[in-house]
Amino acid sequence: MTSAYQDLAARQRRLHHLGHLQAIAQWDQAANMPAKGNEARSLALAEMDGLLHQLATDSALPGLLDSAAAEPLDDTQHANLREIRRVWRAANALPQALVEAKSLANNRCEHAWRTQRPANDWAGFAPNLREVLRIARQEADCLSQSAGLSRYDALLDLYEPGMRSSGVERAFAPLRQWLPGLIRDVIARQATENVIEPVGPFPTAAQKALGLDAMQLMGFDFAAGRLDESTHPFCGGVPEDVRMTTRYREDDFLPALMGVIHETGHGRYEQGLPRELLGQPIARARSMGIHESQSLSFEMQLGSHPAFAGLLAPLLVKHFGAQSAFEPGNLHRLLTRVKPGFIRVDADEVTYPAHILLRFDIERALIEGEAEVDDIPALWDGKMAELLDLDTRGNFKDGPMQDVHWPAGLFGYFPCYTLGAMYAAQWFAAMRTQQPDLDARIADGELGGVFSWLATHVWRVASRYETPELVQRASGEPLNPAHFEMHLRQRYL
Amino acid sequence: MTSAYQDLAARQRRLHHLGHLQAIAQWDQAANMPAKGNEARSLALAEMDGLLHQLATDSALPGLLDSAAAEPLDDTQHANLREIRRVWRAANALPQALVEAKSLANNRCEHAWRTQRPANDWAGFAPNLREVLRIARQEADCLSQSAGLSRYDALLDLYEPGMRSSGVERAFAPLRQWLPGLIRDVIARQATENVIEPVGPFPTAAQKALGLDAMQLMGFDFAAGRLDESTHPFCGGVPEDVRMTTRYREDDFLPALMGVIHETGHGRYEQGLPRELLGQPIARARSMGIHESQSLSFEMQLGSHPAFAGLLAPLLVKHFGAQSAFEPGNLHRLLTRVKPGFIRVDADEVTYPAHILLRFDIERALIEGEAEVDDIPALWDGKMAELLDLDTRGNFKDGPMQDVHWPAGLFGYFPCYTLGAMYAAQWFAAMRTQQPDLDARIADGELGGVFSWLATHVWRVASRYETPELVQRASGEPLNPAHFEMHLRQRYL
Repeated sequence: MTSAYQDLAARQRRLHHLGHLQAIAQWDQAANMPAKGNEARSLALAEMDGLLHQLATDSALPGLLDSAAAEPLDDTQHANLREIRRVWRAANALPQALVEAKSLANNRCEHAWRTQRPANDWAGFAPNLREVLRIARQEADCLSQSAGLSRYDALLDLYEPGMRSSGVERAFAPLRQWLPGLIRDVIARQATENVIEPVGPFPTAAQKALGLDAMQLMGFDFAAGRLDESTHPFCGGVPEDVRMTTRYREDDFLPALMGVIHETGHGRYEQGLPRELLGQPIARARSMGIHESQSLSFEMQLGSHPAFAGLLAPLLVKHFGAQSAFEPGNLHRLLTRVKPGFIRVDADEVTYPAHILLRFDIERALIEGEAEVDDIPALWDGKMAELLDLDTRGNFKDGPMQDVHWPAGLFGYFPCYTLGAMYAAQWFAAMRTQQPDLDARIADGELGGVFSWLATHVWRVASRYETPELVQRASGEPLNPAHFEMHLRQRYL
Repeated sequence: MTSAYQDLAARQRRLHHLGHLQAIAQWDQAANMPAKGNEARSLALAEMDGLLHQLATDSALPGLLDSAAAEPLDDTQHANLREIRRVWRAANALPQALVEAKSLANNRCEHAWRTQRPANDWAGFAPNLREVLRIARQEADCLSQSAGLSRYDALLDLYEPGMRSSGVERAFAPLRQWLPGLIRDVIARQATENVIEPVGPFPTAAQKALGLDAMQLMGFDFAAGRLDESTHPFCGGVPEDVRMTTRYREDDFLPALMGVIHETGHGRYEQGLPRELLGQPIARARSMGIHESQSLSFEMQLGSHPAFAGLLAPLLVKHFGAQSAFEPGNLHRLLTRVKPGFIRVDADEVTYPAHILLRFDIERALIEGEAEVDDIPALWDGKMAELLDLDTRGNFKDGPMQDVHWPAGLFGYFPCYTLGAMYAAQWFAAMRTQQPDLDARIADGELGGVFSWLATHVWRVASRYETPELVQRASGEPLNPAHFEMHLRQRYL
């Protein structure tokens, strides 16, 4: 006799197996697929989306969820049931017609955006984005009624379960205060520094080999994943087979290298999830913010650590030959340059949060109905001037058209990037308390202490605890944005 | 109001979309997947196999098939319905329990075979193969009852629809007569020839570039497919996105090069299927034999054509530098060497059919219950001695353990290879009648006449006609094995 819990768990395994094929086909679409394959691939992925949604909202599920809650379950099963219910509630809140309309509108907007952005065509883009926003508001309505949350909070909950905009605002309020001053101070300080630029070209083959060496240094398991190329770098695949991508430009090796180190953080999180539970929601990465805390632990906390340049330098010499720019002190200065710019994904660690504050404010107003698409450019220009002292008027392509998130219908995602930076700073503060010689060990190239701390407190925990409990258990306190400020002041001033 | 035919067509499109994800994941498993990904991938593929089988045997189908047959249909729809019914009958003949038992037994046998073969471990292999054969006989029983065919014919029909072992025997009987003498005569003739061996090594990167050039020469559409590497070369993916693979050894470039040309024949068939009908069974490749007739048209009819060496030679010089072995006359002699050997996949065009005669006789006896697994080695040794004058006693790994087909449960497949060689010879005989200057054109590097003939008579026809009608319409006569004999005599004597 199968218990309701066992039935639910079997259904989750089925979703995991079918989702595996979906994930590999999506990776392949980005990394391998020739142009003429796209139409058939899109139809195949849409078919699977429909099938997965159908399985995720099967009419037997409410009864099974209720029955399982009355069964004798152990702690793991309890936590898993909580996650199964959470995922089911979100899927079930949306009528099938809305799911389909959303998929259509988002695909249309994102597809057109790919040519509209380089053409700076805001007038062409705005009507599509209006439709995407209209549907996102409907989605937010449905989720909000089902979960008893505000509209924006209901979307935020999809990416950062349990987080509310009030919590984000609590974390971001001090940031709003100290960030502009810190940026000014850091720029003033760095103005006196002497930095030698590396001299290229840096052949793609050498950069690839360097990236693999860096992944090795960061402990990536190549028997359970690989590195390939795509236009937009990402970490995809499945926990059992992680597919990272990057892109190369021969005049500069740092974007690809630091991108690879960033994605390796995502990749090791996935590789480190509890294998014995894979297929169940309890074994999934906790949230987008926690995920980003791993990539930023790798890229920023470790990758821009003053001692890390000493570990990277010999690899650069090995793959590109010696040059004075690779001297560790100079390399560290290169890795920590701060310069306000238009583009979020190119931003340094210090100015990055400004890009997020701006987007968080605008997207929350859009979803809550306090702003419309036509208001975006003026809001954008005002905040860019205020936060980064940059003039973006009329420059839509490097302004509100620069990210794929809104055209793709992803509202509520942006805050996770800076929450991730805050979590990462908090992890390293906790690590330093527990391992006082941490920085000396990093200088010696002994990164095992960092990795085992992350594995113990984040990777193997997966979704066993809700985020506040995960954070409390890992660091001994709730989310505390002061660690991020201290980290930046210490590293940059 | 949806007609029964429209309902069936929509179900076929759904199967096509889900099968797309399955095909890409299978290609990825062979071409990219790291070792630790295999368990999760196998589970994911098995889940999809189950789902596809479930959709293919849905209880609504018999009623829909009957209703559709009574609806007013055009010729295309009639032909498509015939194919839908054929595929449904084969899927429906097998009980779910047998499908699962077969999958388990075949996977177990094939997996163990991968280590047993190099160890020459017939004693370890035989019990697994016995189980695979037991289940293949059950499968043949089920199919045979459903289709009113003998057991072996019921399996053969899966790969070569409409072909019966009596038809195979009719085509193979003359071959049995003339092949041993022809092999002797060719060897005697070639013994007097002077052949210069190419001098390696041939770097993998240069071989890859050469392969891409050869695919270009053969008209492969790189916007709808790609070439990668795998341990066992194959042509996979989907018609909209063909995934070819090859493997490289640096001491010899010919296996990879001719392998690529062979797979390009399969690839262009897939790329040339009628796009407007893709997703429906009428738009699928006709059979394994017709498929092989395309790869052999490319590899043997064209690739070993005396004039083709003149097209290849400049490519070899371009990628490896000049050497005397690349002189066209010598290159042609290299490409047409005949030498009896143990291994089917390494065999030349002349001795290859001997490997098929042997396997056809043995597997037919196995399936019809006239031989058992323990009889295989003696049967093999006897036939290898008789057909190729080779002693294979005790050499299981280069004998009955060399192919993946039987361990994987594929009985009834082998004859398709030689039927394909016969069809290919028949296509070129017909082409020469219609295009008397064909050979001169090939010498001029004008291959378009060959490709457009194949596109018109085979690729775009797909499964519109049953095989005998396809063959008759294409060549003006039924399958006529005399063309294959004439082709070999003309090329090799």
